[in-house]
Amino acid sequence: MRARVFVTLRKAVLDPQGQAVGQALRTLGFSELKDARLGKLVELEVADGTSKARIEEMCKKLLANPVIEDFSVELT
Amino acid sequence: MRARVFVTLRKAVLDPQGQAVGQALRTLGFSELKDARLGKLVELEVADGTSKARIEEMCKKLLANPVIEDFSVELT
Repeated sequence: MRARVFVTLRKAVLDPQGQAVGQALRTLGFSELKDARLGKLVELEVADGTSKARIEEMCKKLLANPVIEDFSVELT
Repeated sequence: MRARVFVTLRKAVLDPQGQAVGQALRTLGFSELKDARLGKLVELEVADGTSKARIEEMCKKLLANPVIEDFSVELT
């Protein structure tokens, strides 16, 4: 089975990389863009029957930095 | 309105960063992990009524490298 993990910077944390992307897109003519924020996507292939809690444990231990990042897990 | 863009490496492209994450997780005891691949998540805040096609254009022009990456867009 597969799982997707989304790791995003917390709202209160500055995201200069996202700001650069946003500025670049507006320079390219995408004036409808208001804000851009960058995060990570981790696609995991795990043994069948792996629980969501187990994947959240992976996030807490390695994939996300809980001080500045939030994460969410989606099983597919 | 908000949109999420998922940028992933194409299947045929080697992903050393994902392999490193996978190895690290297995070292931490997550033996149920079979494979890990890393991608990018771009969260966009755009003007109401922006079409999906317009966001796909952003991907083609800046957010993804179509030679080695696939992308998908999700409007929320």
